[in-house]
Amino acid sequence: MQNDLLLLSSSAVFGMKPLEYALDVVKEFLDGESNLLFVPYALANYDSYTIRVQNMLAPLGVAVEGIHTAVNPRQVVETARVLFVGGGNSFRLLKALQEHDLLAIVRKRVEAGELRYMGSSAGTNMACPSLRTTNDMPIVQPSSFGAFGLIPFQINPHYLDPDPHSHHQGETRADRIEQFLEENDVPVLGMREGCWLRRRASALILGGITGARLFTRKAEPQEIAPGTDLSWLLETRALFDWRG
Amino acid sequence: MQNDLLLLSSSAVFGMKPLEYALDVVKEFLDGESNLLFVPYALANYDSYTIRVQNMLAPLGVAVEGIHTAVNPRQVVETARVLFVGGGNSFRLLKALQEHDLLAIVRKRVEAGELRYMGSSAGTNMACPSLRTTNDMPIVQPSSFGAFGLIPFQINPHYLDPDPHSHHQGETRADRIEQFLEENDVPVLGMREGCWLRRRASALILGGITGARLFTRKAEPQEIAPGTDLSWLLETRALFDWRG
Repeated sequence: MQNDLLLLSSSAVFGMKPLEYALDVVKEFLDGESNLLFVPYALANYDSYTIRVQNMLAPLGVAVEGIHTAVNPRQVVETARVLFVGGGNSFRLLKALQEHDLLAIVRKRVEAGELRYMGSSAGTNMACPSLRTTNDMPIVQPSSFGAFGLIPFQINPHYLDPDPHSHHQGETRADRIEQFLEENDVPVLGMREGCWLRRRASALILGGITGARLFTRKAEPQEIAPGTDLSWLLETRALFDWRG
Repeated sequence: MQNDLLLLSSSAVFGMKPLEYALDVVKEFLDGESNLLFVPYALANYDSYTIRVQNMLAPLGVAVEGIHTAVNPRQVVETARVLFVGGGNSFRLLKALQEHDLLAIVRKRVEAGELRYMGSSAGTNMACPSLRTTNDMPIVQPSSFGAFGLIPFQINPHYLDPDPHSHHQGETRADRIEQFLEENDVPVLGMREGCWLRRRASALILGGITGARLFTRKAEPQEIAPGTDLSWLLETRALFDWRG
């Protein structure tokens, strides 16, 4: 397994330009590649989304191709070297990936070391075994919740710490992740906006500026500081639909 | 169609005891019935949830039976007069309702006027055609997103107004509902904590203390004050998977 991944919690961070906090690691990840295949399926307007990403990545001198402009999306995935799956709604994204039959081919090429994978928000969620830890509204129904599975644990992007001053009675993000852990025995990394995961083969590190919370079944959540080596999480045995 | 429904946005409201804001309307809804069949499937611990609801409803002198204590849940639904579907995780709730084959029988008896339906939070979401406007994490995978369909439009429970001071870059609730409306042409009533909907046959009214926001495709959201007659929403023609 040669997986070369860059998983951003989000592209936007308060007070910064889109992707500004991550430009250095994106540059390192690209390693001189100047063409990037972009998957805009998580938003409704593919063209405007692709232009926006082209502008975000302009400082790195990268040419961005929207996968939706190809007559055969599978074919362009077959020859691409770098894939970027953008954020938006995870359910809409996964349904489109299924309809275009892209899940297996992306997984195969990433695992063979032929394709690098970068995700942001919903695109990061999609690198997990399942979308089951998304924050998004289930606005459409994918045929399955199974996703790319490029890592063996789950990520919750845009992770938000509970607000002690809130009057809201709905579940906090931590409550929701605990509900996930009642039904599944799979670690969940709650990634705050402004952090990213970088995987190179069997090495995994948390980077960025904000840190993360790691939730595992029947244990207190752990704080994970930027710079922490998380390679051990790649040994996770994920047990979905496994009541505690 | 004799649908007799009471749909609460939530049981908890800041600064009040559970259900306190709604006790009068619950009493009116019960209309002297002293037995209530409770569906606790949205939380992991059915027994403790049922005891909690029994305590909440104690001021009304109601006996609460947890549906999970029945050998055959379908059979007790066949003879019940009042059903209360409690909140928690909507995906877990819907999956259990499917596994126990309860969707069609509840719909049939409610529409025949033989069974009154009360829901709170996830239980209110379940009265809609689909769970597609839930806030919950998709911790398990139901076989379909189709729900009871006791009303022809969608509800977003625990509706939260956008916070102008937030630094969070994830979607607001209103953003998420707008994404739903990109994929589906179905009105969504965003019900704030502290409001409820009362349906009696073809009459529908918003009650409670906090009001709601009504979202429809390609229109500005409308503010709906407590006391508003919403019967016209029962004429909705819902178009799911209908891109704008």
